[in-house]
Amino acid sequence: MTRSASEHAKNRETEFVEQLKDLLRIPSISTLTTHKSYIERAAEWLRDHCLAIGMTRAEIYPTPGHPIVYAEWLGAGKAAPTLLVYGHYDVQPVDGVWNQEDPFEPVERGGNLYARGATDDKGQLFVHLKAFDAIMKATGSFPMNFKVMFEGEEEIASVHLNAFIEKHLDMLTADVVVISDNHIQGIDDPSIIYGLRGLTYMEIEVTGPDHDLHSGAYGGAVHNPALALVQILHRMHDEQGHILVPGFYDEVVPLTDEERKALSAVPFTEAMLKAQTGADKLWGEPEFTARERIGARPTLEINGIWGGWTGEGQKTIIPAKATAKVSCRLVANQNPKRIYELVKAYVARITPDTVRSEVRLLSTGDSALVPLDSEAMQVAVEAYEAVFGKKPTFMREGGSIPVVATYNRLMKAPVVMMGFGLPDDNLHAPNEKITLKMFHRGIQTMIHFYQNLPKHFGK
Amino acid sequence: MTRSASEHAKNRETEFVEQLKDLLRIPSISTLTTHKSYIERAAEWLRDHCLAIGMTRAEIYPTPGHPIVYAEWLGAGKAAPTLLVYGHYDVQPVDGVWNQEDPFEPVERGGNLYARGATDDKGQLFVHLKAFDAIMKATGSFPMNFKVMFEGEEEIASVHLNAFIEKHLDMLTADVVVISDNHIQGIDDPSIIYGLRGLTYMEIEVTGPDHDLHSGAYGGAVHNPALALVQILHRMHDEQGHILVPGFYDEVVPLTDEERKALSAVPFTEAMLKAQTGADKLWGEPEFTARERIGARPTLEINGIWGGWTGEGQKTIIPAKATAKVSCRLVANQNPKRIYELVKAYVARITPDTVRSEVRLLSTGDSALVPLDSEAMQVAVEAYEAVFGKKPTFMREGGSIPVVATYNRLMKAPVVMMGFGLPDDNLHAPNEKITLKMFHRGIQTMIHFYQNLPKHFGK
Repeated sequence: MTRSASEHAKNRETEFVEQLKDLLRIPSISTLTTHKSYIERAAEWLRDHCLAIGMTRAEIYPTPGHPIVYAEWLGAGKAAPTLLVYGHYDVQPVDGVWNQEDPFEPVERGGNLYARGATDDKGQLFVHLKAFDAIMKATGSFPMNFKVMFEGEEEIASVHLNAFIEKHLDMLTADVVVISDNHIQGIDDPSIIYGLRGLTYMEIEVTGPDHDLHSGAYGGAVHNPALALVQILHRMHDEQGHILVPGFYDEVVPLTDEERKALSAVPFTEAMLKAQTGADKLWGEPEFTARERIGARPTLEINGIWGGWTGEGQKTIIPAKATAKVSCRLVANQNPKRIYELVKAYVARITPDTVRSEVRLLSTGDSALVPLDSEAMQVAVEAYEAVFGKKPTFMREGGSIPVVATYNRLMKAPVVMMGFGLPDDNLHAPNEKITLKMFHRGIQTMIHFYQNLPKHFGK
Repeated sequence: MTRSASEHAKNRETEFVEQLKDLLRIPSISTLTTHKSYIERAAEWLRDHCLAIGMTRAEIYPTPGHPIVYAEWLGAGKAAPTLLVYGHYDVQPVDGVWNQEDPFEPVERGGNLYARGATDDKGQLFVHLKAFDAIMKATGSFPMNFKVMFEGEEEIASVHLNAFIEKHLDMLTADVVVISDNHIQGIDDPSIIYGLRGLTYMEIEVTGPDHDLHSGAYGGAVHNPALALVQILHRMHDEQGHILVPGFYDEVVPLTDEERKALSAVPFTEAMLKAQTGADKLWGEPEFTARERIGARPTLEINGIWGGWTGEGQKTIIPAKATAKVSCRLVANQNPKRIYELVKAYVARITPDTVRSEVRLLSTGDSALVPLDSEAMQVAVEAYEAVFGKKPTFMREGGSIPVVATYNRLMKAPVVMMGFGLPDDNLHAPNEKITLKMFHRGIQTMIHFYQNLPKHFGK
């Protein structure tokens, strides 16, 4: 049976790519209000496609923001396990210089398909629909109950997703959740992410004088808020990169020896990191490897800073205020709101009495750690190995997918993150692409996964 | 004779104010290319007015930027001393909210005349022309040779003034230079500025990765340039406000006991400074008073800082670079170019090897200290005392008027800064004004000064 669905998919590769191109042609940029109609068109396209490939129900659920597409095929019966696929059909804007005239007119070149959304996340969510399509067409049925939920607000912080999940918990209920919205280490180096960092995003503002002052008339007598901000931010790290906010590390779950070993097996070198970033030299807590620091250690980053005169030339002022955007990437079991409270208290304590400071919370997202020993994880490992010819390594990812924590919390179903992107896919950047070999390998991997998962469930 | 010119001026007060209004009606904003014709009209107005009040030569000298007006009356003969008045007819733009419809349609209210340029510097340069006018009309002659030079680029860093002075040194030669482009301490508290700070204006840029990075994917492994900039800027000061750049203070001429005494006599309190700035508490080198710090101590200020995401909401990036505008106010005998070299070397030394930094010089201006014991200074003291009924205090001013250093260097003539503005004149701000009592007292003071100065010169 596996062979049959797999061969069916291989025979239809060209057709699948053409279908993906249709989806990529819809400029569903979620952050631009001018693109609202495209968001709706992409949702309709997905609803129609789900029905076309044999799912029995497909609906568009409006939210106060962009709609959520939900579709299902429940023909496996109550005894069979149920699987939920999460993906998002919204994309990033297209600023920057592309090698093609229109980032929404997909271009095939050198085995890659270039378009905004090719890997993030239209190409990856489509892998699941095509695996379902191939199995249904090849076998006339699907080995378990299948649900998909595609949101249109992932690129704008999934603002309405949690409320939707809480409201429709029964409808969404599943035994396993699969997300494909990330990358593996290399085209022949599969890897599975089991940890995601959480996030606490803040704004720190320092104010002093009630208006910008002439630096000649007052310089030397008044504390410059930009300097005071510098002094406050400086006290957030020691020179080696350890975070100095008291209590910051208290709830961090330490890496086990097993995890450190698994992470060290990831084909990930400092040279690769330097090439990807352009940095001359790496930086950070010396007692951890770079790979460990990115996935398993929390951070506190200045994402933005501004104050005073930032235009051409010169203006001799002492600015009335200076501000920084500061965010912490968090790991299990750090609580994002508690981290905010700790930073707020620390900033209040270290702010000199010559200025005033305020720490505002902009958003939070929970970190997530999924168990390595679930049945679904074992099946995922086998599926990658069968298709890529190599066992996947386990990674903790530096980024955040807050919905993973939501699933963990609300559904108690194991989440498996099975990515089919590559590190050089240029997501959120010009010339985003998906490597077609990865797209097809993804479909094969998911066919393997779907056809083997039910054997591991006693239901 | 003094009485006669003085009374003549008193009788013509209303006429003088109306004449000033005519000058204020010309929107000679030097920074706006759209206002070039008004700059020219203001220069022509001044040239014509100089001839109308009896000067024998008045010319407009073009520069690569805005023109300079030069006029003279040399009827006192070669034995008499020669005086040069400097002023500027260009004004600042008019952004912000004014209480009048048109900042170039002067409004008299509560004894003040409100208009852009009222105090900076049209009102103050006009004081000299009216003192000359009154003496000429009242006595038929002037007690010394009189030269005026009015530039149109003071608000845009006097870019072409030094070259003009060097080229026309013979024409401009004088025994005393008088500048009125500043304020005294209070309407009944005359003061004379004898020190001006110099300036070194720089931009410090820190770069790391070759593009903005996803803070999830790379946070913790790469040195954030905004953090590195914070770490560099932090090392510029100790917590008390002393500057830590090695060699920075080496050439500072220490305050003498006499100077400290003179400065402490200035009616200038911390409460006044707090009220003017809105700062809750003062700041700076504790071994100096605020008045000393502003006038007699050098500073290093962050005038602007920026990097990364500075818009609404959040963007989780590690910025590729971060930049600060940093300027030093300098005192005698600090050399602005040497200060740049010191800062540059220090930044190079303290920049961590995980990022790169660059210090760019944007501009420099020399500091100036004029002798307190020149004959001209004594006459200025007597003139203020005669009109204000109180001896002026001596102040070092925090700001910079680079032309003072140029005169000191090129002409060896003592410069006397006799200001007739007040601290609340809102220069460079909305609702700029000159207090009419100050305008008229200024004319009286200059009549006194002009009529008494020749007695002190042996020529």
